[in-house]
Amino acid sequence: MSSPSPARPWRPSRVVSLLTDFGERDHYVGVMKGVLLRALPEVVPLDLCHGVAPQAILHASWLLAHSWRYFPAGSVHVAVVDPGVGSSRRILVAEQEEHAFLAPDNGLLGPVLGEGARVFELDQERFALPARSSTFHGRDVLAPAAAALAGGLEPARAGRPLGDWQRASFPEVTALGRGLLRTEVLYADHYGNLVTPLGAERLEGGAAAWEVQLGDALVPVRRTYAEARPGELLALIGSSGSLEVSVREGDAARALSLGPGAAVIARRKQG
Amino acid sequence: MSSPSPARPWRPSRVVSLLTDFGERDHYVGVMKGVLLRALPEVVPLDLCHGVAPQAILHASWLLAHSWRYFPAGSVHVAVVDPGVGSSRRILVAEQEEHAFLAPDNGLLGPVLGEGARVFELDQERFALPARSSTFHGRDVLAPAAAALAGGLEPARAGRPLGDWQRASFPEVTALGRGLLRTEVLYADHYGNLVTPLGAERLEGGAAAWEVQLGDALVPVRRTYAEARPGELLALIGSSGSLEVSVREGDAARALSLGPGAAVIARRKQG
Amino acid sequence: MSSPSPARPWRPSRVVSLLTDFGERDHYVGVMKGVLLRALPEVVPLDLCHGVAPQAILHASWLLAHSWRYFPAGSVHVAVVDPGVGSSRRILVAEQEEHAFLAPDNGLLGPVLGEGARVFELDQERFALPARSSTFHGRDVLAPAAAALAGGLEPARAGRPLGDWQRASFPEVTALGRGLLRTEVLYADHYGNLVTPLGAERLEGGAAAWEVQLGDALVPVRRTYAEARPGELLALIGSSGSLEVSVREGDAARALSLGPGAAVIARRKQG
Repeated sequence: MSSPSPARPWRPSRVVSLLTDFGERDHYVGVMKGVLLRALPEVVPLDLCHGVAPQAILHASWLLAHSWRYFPAGSVHVAVVDPGVGSSRRILVAEQEEHAFLAPDNGLLGPVLGEGARVFELDQERFALPARSSTFHGRDVLAPAAAALAGGLEPARAGRPLGDWQRASFPEVTALGRGLLRTEVLYADHYGNLVTPLGAERLEGGAAAWEVQLGDALVPVRRTYAEARPGELLALIGSSGSLEVSVREGDAARALSLGPGAAVIARRKQG
Repeated sequence: MSSPSPARPWRPSRVVSLLTDFGERDHYVGVMKGVLLRALPEVVPLDLCHGVAPQAILHASWLLAHSWRYFPAGSVHVAVVDPGVGSSRRILVAEQEEHAFLAPDNGLLGPVLGEGARVFELDQERFALPARSSTFHGRDVLAPAAAALAGGLEPARAGRPLGDWQRASFPEVTALGRGLLRTEVLYADHYGNLVTPLGAERLEGGAAAWEVQLGDALVPVRRTYAEARPGELLALIGSSGSLEVSVREGDAARALSLGPGAAVIARRKQG
Repeated sequence: MSSPSPARPWRPSRVVSLLTDFGERDHYVGVMKGVLLRALPEVVPLDLCHGVAPQAILHASWLLAHSWRYFPAGSVHVAVVDPGVGSSRRILVAEQEEHAFLAPDNGLLGPVLGEGARVFELDQERFALPARSSTFHGRDVLAPAAAALAGGLEPARAGRPLGDWQRASFPEVTALGRGLLRTEVLYADHYGNLVTPLGAERLEGGAAAWEVQLGDALVPVRRTYAEARPGELLALIGSSGSLEVSVREGDAARALSLGPGAAVIARRKQG
């Protein structure tokens, strides 16, 4: 097996971040934290987000991809968006830059893991609680495995090396011509900001040299919300480093009646 | 007083789980955690769920009944669904299998506590904050009492033994004949799964030998979601060990326009 | 500079409370906690509330004003409702009664800080993460500054003294005549209780001597919910010490179709 050696041995922090589509109405998240604390009293369970749209795997990928580096080295990141639960789908355990990751093998980790990541198939039998359900492996398999990693188990010792895991990608950004890019809305956030995967580095000459078309609307690119009037449409580089379309002190998703999948054209201004 | 002696002395973990109908829009949950931490710096406040439908006592009972065993021994479980707040309703403190429980005496703990539980009436005056409101005893009484238990106070020393506390039960599962059971929907979870109190152990011959009727729909029982096609109705044994009706990658509550109280018939298949 | 000296030196607890309008659908809150834990492993990040209506600054003020005293001395309270993010708006750091506060200078802290508070302008450059965005200073500036305070930095050493910060106030309570007060609804909470800023101390002779008018409804003042029948309108002194209008086991905001800004008249009863 030729996986690259990690730069340093696995040194867990006590932090386990949790990212799910479980919502806020049920005991599912709380029970996972109970399992973590029962296995490892010093663990710090931490909610990354539980408002992923049900089974929206790439939405979860985006949130995790733009979050994990902000956590302490040695954190364990558990992501459970799992429409295949109960089937024979695999569970992945991965190590990347001194962080560990646990998620179903359904593409979720595709955009999160880079070239240097080491990926393993979790030995589910070894970590599963005695009475494993067929619908809630977050509780019955992933939480116990996360506790083991947070307690010091090397990710490489939690399963067997794996090469053919599911890689998935965010929607593409396509160059339609010089100074003309096409992509699509990835999701609308809590404020109604329409988030796209178009990274700032793709906007030659700087974001201010571009404008954006969504449906009938031609939207100027601004540096901050304050450069627009309240109620006005604007595009800017959001906190994840990619283009977002917003309404200042308003809700762009509602104003434009647009959501995930809507086409976005970025055009470099003349002159 | 002839309550059974506990097998072991009360040895608190630092964990206090919180289950309420407080929702996410207010400071109510946060303030309870503040009170816990002010009283006991080493406490670990943990959200079990705050999305119980307002005043849906049995919904809270179900979530707690299917959660508490996953927490560390020595945990304190505080449940606040409290339409009687400000009246003379009692507050219960209970001990069961090395876990402690605090909740209003309104039936909530009925389905949670078993034969071996020891139940006491909390001495509210002793724990109440100096300025007790008439609308928020979660903050003013239950949180301070929970901190005391988490700090080592024996549940038996937090009040006086009580025999006549309010017992309540989940909706019944009635045998209408051989191979014919009737119950009702208890609640719809975040995914729209219709959860019933019909436990797997009632389905003689195994769940796969049965089918389920809800309204006009006749629903097959599956072992996992993966055995249904996306969009298809199925029933299965959910993570709490009871029958749930689902749509694979969909929302059964919405698809059937059914909710709490809807009749559910389970029928053993011929042959 | 003549700010009053604090009674005692800054002695942080490990607690950092977080109050935002970030909602539950995104990674924004989770990432702030990651930043806190990366900077200070022993920190205890604690959600006060993330359900503030987008950009509803005074709603956040109300929640914080009625929460902070319940937390341990030495807590750091971070409030992020920040429509001016990315502009040149200042960030405040304040110390009051052994608690520290961090928030944009947009009025949010106005009703929270009293006469004895010491207020400073945060030195943003000093605390900012290397790659500061123009839309998410909760992550890039406030969380790192909060970790520094929770780690022992004196609030006075986090910036320069400031006199002209933005003071804002809750809606007024106006005496229209003897025994006649006018105010307005501040917000509706999760239960549909219509919360007003009219404090109990303004109701001469005790709350029971008054009645309340909202739109066409004349509402009696009760001491507890239990004094009303299920479904009945009542007013009472809520958990923040001010007048609220409720429906027992119901939703007053929905029943009356009223919300923030609605006029509320309190009238002392004859006799």
